[in-house]
Amino acid sequence: MNKEFDVKNFEITDAFWAPRQRLVSETVIPYQEKVLNDEVPGIEKSHALANFRIAAGMEDGEFYGMVFQDSDVAKWLEGVAYSLCVKPDPELERRADEIIRIIAAAQQPDGYLDTYFIIKEPDRKFQNLQECHELYCAGHMMEAAVAYYEATGKDALLKVMQNVVDCIDSHIGTESGKIPGVPGHEEIEIGLLRMYRLTGEKKALKLAAYFINQRGVNPGFFDEETKTRGWIQWENSPHDTEYNQSFAPVRQQKAAKGHSVRAMYLYAAMADYAEISGDRSLAEACEALWNDVTQKQMYLTGGIGQVARWEGFTHAYDLPNDTAYAETCASIGLVMFAKRMLNLRADSKYADVMERALYNGILSGMQLDGKRFFYVNPLEVNPGVSGKLPGYEHVLTKRPEWFGCACCPPNVVRMIASLGKYAWDEKDGVIYSHLFVGGTAKFEQAVIRVESSYPWEGHIRYYFEKSAKKAICLAVRIPSYVKNAVISINEENVEMQRNDSGYAYLERVWERGDIVAVDFEMPVRRTYCNPLVRADENCVALQRGPFVYCFEGADNGENIQQLRIPEEAAFSVSAEPDGLLKGMKVIEFEGIRAVSQDGELYSEIRPEEQTVPMRAIPYFAWGNRGENQMRVWLPERRKGKE
Amino acid sequence: MNKEFDVKNFEITDAFWAPRQRLVSETVIPYQEKVLNDEVPGIEKSHALANFRIAAGMEDGEFYGMVFQDSDVAKWLEGVAYSLCVKPDPELERRADEIIRIIAAAQQPDGYLDTYFIIKEPDRKFQNLQECHELYCAGHMMEAAVAYYEATGKDALLKVMQNVVDCIDSHIGTESGKIPGVPGHEEIEIGLLRMYRLTGEKKALKLAAYFINQRGVNPGFFDEETKTRGWIQWENSPHDTEYNQSFAPVRQQKAAKGHSVRAMYLYAAMADYAEISGDRSLAEACEALWNDVTQKQMYLTGGIGQVARWEGFTHAYDLPNDTAYAETCASIGLVMFAKRMLNLRADSKYADVMERALYNGILSGMQLDGKRFFYVNPLEVNPGVSGKLPGYEHVLTKRPEWFGCACCPPNVVRMIASLGKYAWDEKDGVIYSHLFVGGTAKFEQAVIRVESSYPWEGHIRYYFEKSAKKAICLAVRIPSYVKNAVISINEENVEMQRNDSGYAYLERVWERGDIVAVDFEMPVRRTYCNPLVRADENCVALQRGPFVYCFEGADNGENIQQLRIPEEAAFSVSAEPDGLLKGMKVIEFEGIRAVSQDGELYSEIRPEEQTVPMRAIPYFAWGNRGENQMRVWLPERRKGKE
Repeated sequence: MNKEFDVKNFEITDAFWAPRQRLVSETVIPYQEKVLNDEVPGIEKSHALANFRIAAGMEDGEFYGMVFQDSDVAKWLEGVAYSLCVKPDPELERRADEIIRIIAAAQQPDGYLDTYFIIKEPDRKFQNLQECHELYCAGHMMEAAVAYYEATGKDALLKVMQNVVDCIDSHIGTESGKIPGVPGHEEIEIGLLRMYRLTGEKKALKLAAYFINQRGVNPGFFDEETKTRGWIQWENSPHDTEYNQSFAPVRQQKAAKGHSVRAMYLYAAMADYAEISGDRSLAEACEALWNDVTQKQMYLTGGIGQVARWEGFTHAYDLPNDTAYAETCASIGLVMFAKRMLNLRADSKYADVMERALYNGILSGMQLDGKRFFYVNPLEVNPGVSGKLPGYEHVLTKRPEWFGCACCPPNVVRMIASLGKYAWDEKDGVIYSHLFVGGTAKFEQAVIRVESSYPWEGHIRYYFEKSAKKAICLAVRIPSYVKNAVISINEENVEMQRNDSGYAYLERVWERGDIVAVDFEMPVRRTYCNPLVRADENCVALQRGPFVYCFEGADNGENIQQLRIPEEAAFSVSAEPDGLLKGMKVIEFEGIRAVSQDGELYSEIRPEEQTVPMRAIPYFAWGNRGENQMRVWLPERRKGKE
Repeated sequence: MNKEFDVKNFEITDAFWAPRQRLVSETVIPYQEKVLNDEVPGIEKSHALANFRIAAGMEDGEFYGMVFQDSDVAKWLEGVAYSLCVKPDPELERRADEIIRIIAAAQQPDGYLDTYFIIKEPDRKFQNLQECHELYCAGHMMEAAVAYYEATGKDALLKVMQNVVDCIDSHIGTESGKIPGVPGHEEIEIGLLRMYRLTGEKKALKLAAYFINQRGVNPGFFDEETKTRGWIQWENSPHDTEYNQSFAPVRQQKAAKGHSVRAMYLYAAMADYAEISGDRSLAEACEALWNDVTQKQMYLTGGIGQVARWEGFTHAYDLPNDTAYAETCASIGLVMFAKRMLNLRADSKYADVMERALYNGILSGMQLDGKRFFYVNPLEVNPGVSGKLPGYEHVLTKRPEWFGCACCPPNVVRMIASLGKYAWDEKDGVIYSHLFVGGTAKFEQAVIRVESSYPWEGHIRYYFEKSAKKAICLAVRIPSYVKNAVISINEENVEMQRNDSGYAYLERVWERGDIVAVDFEMPVRRTYCNPLVRADENCVALQRGPFVYCFEGADNGENIQQLRIPEEAAFSVSAEPDGLLKGMKVIEFEGIRAVSQDGELYSEIRPEEQTVPMRAIPYFAWGNRGENQMRVWLPERRKGKE
């Protein structure tokens, strides 16, 4: 078993990610701290920290917020932990320590920790695993505890969460007198496994295995639980076992179903446990689910979850653009799943999806200035329809400041702040470079400095900063979209050793000063969707490097649906010289706009094709220049048939 | 003021409509009578006739059904009236007389007639004009009374409804002590004006004028009404004044809003009253609303009402195909509106829409065997999505037998049975032929027999069966899609006198044996949608004659979205030799199916274009061969650019 690659061990310095990490540390985390403390006027009240103070007896008052409000504090703390690695901040660390002190004070003598039940319903603990998210909140707090320990070496929260593990273990399980239940929202599985990877504590591993293996064994559990207790929290049906992936034992699940964040957290934990346990049947289930998600139900942006009603999956090839849910958190969950699949087997297909989600469907969740956030990341937006008409209410045309259910903003924070974790792995003597992120990474046997013009250009240099004592293998992922990568060591080209797995394995006794260079062209790539997908029929989308591009009204005028991308269009790529998108590469070309010739609603006269300049920007940057129409997919105007 | 053209005066004998009228008379009306009598097992209970018997004190029991259940009986009776014109049936007439006797017995001494309030809430009459539809039901019963009198000469129901007019007039109006209200669902305006056209009774005219002119004068009326009475029937918000077109006085309404059936019934009545009163400002409002509906919010099929939530309009150029509501009743309302616009001004543009709705979005409402009915008439259906996924629940893939809210089936019945009314007008000495329907029509000054190969071919012969004493003008509408009609009189071509209005005016002292022949080609017409409509971008639809065509899975296999219609496709048209569609002209051609070359969800390899046979059938006949995919609009595969 490997430890996770520690965020602390990779100092990111490149021009793309370093400023975003700074933004998160300097703007988003302090803003969210104010939100959690109810110090931001005019937005949804949080009360999340007040709930802990009240539960700790430090303050009078009532519980306020979602039943899972505690998780906002947990996700923020986890983000703080990563941020402290990225940018030490003793004052922030002091405040985080104080919050952890409050959390510890709120913990009950038996280890129980959930402010909703402590304050409001002390007699109803563990009665509503389906809806009440005690285990979900615990999972997030475990992740925070692990991250905070790794960042600071302080174990106060870790100890709190070890007590929580004991508490949960004493109540839940198949042993007589315990509740044979599973959580309605997965997450604790991830938290427990991270605890185990850090501490080696078997009880955490055993409990995680229980939650994974028990899910779906009794699909009637939530129904029985509901009947036994006689009360409900919301209107979630206990019969909807697809929603929370409890319709079948996990090894029998072949297609992704239900709530997409729940599904991702489950699948990520399954992959993690498969790696720890060596369980082949579980690994095979993960592979089947991975293929279903990424080859049949994933948007080009790495967005997942097609439908708003249950924030989740529908079925293969159903990928509507203008009603997509594609929750930011779900794409983050997909990255977590991908990273754990990579840990099972270093195959670039996992890293490709990780990169896709990261540079597109996740980054789009945050406004460029870090002040506003999307929950929903559609691939088509139409003002006057999106956010207004029935079926489109969830598709907002601009990012709101905060949400009553504030899962996505802190999730983006922790993802960006912990990016280093996703860039590298060190396993069985191989150093894996999964993402081309610039900075300096420390490993047991090497220190590697990466200079990278990525994601805008394909020139990456790995500098070995220390001489090694023995041969080390550096495995560099070559994205699957790269046709011809030139790899050189100390300016001498090496035969491209890329194998089926999509990694170039470069092994030698590296010496200080050795340079591995990776160079590739980054042309604009026309991308077609499988014609089994109705929504993208006859359309093409543009990609360049890791980015999906989109067309916005700000650049292309109104009624973007009138635009066509000619088959023979010559794309010109240039960096934006100024404005909000400064530095981003945009794609320009001579396109076509179809215009009615007679103004009729229906006509036998084919619309006229006018030549117009067209311009595409990276998808993640959409919605930063006011409300306007946006599309990723546009019809391709074919040349003649041969 | 003209009397309406009487259904009795046109005996339809052509091969398209006569069998459909027989189907309605012999199958649908008897079936619906059984439904109204609760004699059909396994479907939604109606109880509509029982309600009348209970209200009349002939039977014990409770009211059951919608608050507007009475209207089912009214619409059925109106249909019976037309059916008796089409196919006399003394036994049916006897049963209808008996039902009318029950209705008369249910009427209260003060003229009040609504079984819901008589049985269930006698103290709440006229308190909830917004939701409770007393006036709506009265309007339908007035239509039935007029039709039944015209068909049979019996005035029992007419007398009942004159008492209802007195009753309503004594309760509602702007005079002191009366309720200054309007109905939440328009219809009474139409009924009152039909009463007036038949009887010349001024009170009916005055009351109709009041309802039209008062609407929207006080947009707060429904809110005030709600507060005053302190109870609600359903959850309809009294603040949603767009829903029932009460947001502004009718002359200030420029765009169609709200519930589409409500809107059509209002606009039809406005046009009718504008003609009767000569009110120019009202006629102008009708014209503006007509143009908005038909030039900006109407589907190619004549379907209207884009959204299910309020069964109504959204805004210009928003015409999604797969979530369309396009209620059968709304298209029927559009035909009623069109006919009254024609009465204001004989312009083919109104008749074109009338024909479009009739041959497409209305006929599609009924299964070919007359046994099942659609409420919703989408232009795209996808099994697995339609009727299943959120936002698509209303889009059924096959026609159900009956509905709890059974407005559409009897509405189709009355439309088909009364078709003759829409085919002709006689006004100011001109005989207008609006639709090419074969049969024998009697006018004050002429008897004309029409032999017609329409709608499948464009060969129509008008035979004058009697010699006239003076010159008569026959105005024949030439559909706007016809490029070159050849018109001859007694085999001698006449210079095409078609004017801006789209009617060919042919005036002479007609003699017995004179023949007017109208001949035109009926090519397959490629039809384009204005590119301002997002849903049909880059697509083409096929029309031939009055028919819109569609592609079904039964003919074209699965995944119809993969199909393309080549720009250079040569269409071949032939009549179906047998099967359910026997006799219908289908369109066949060599088309294209786009197929993924690598099976990937996203690929840089453009899908391969395979040549496949394609086949389109008339839209109205869709959904008769089992559940399958269906589309009207398909991408056009262009030839090369010049």
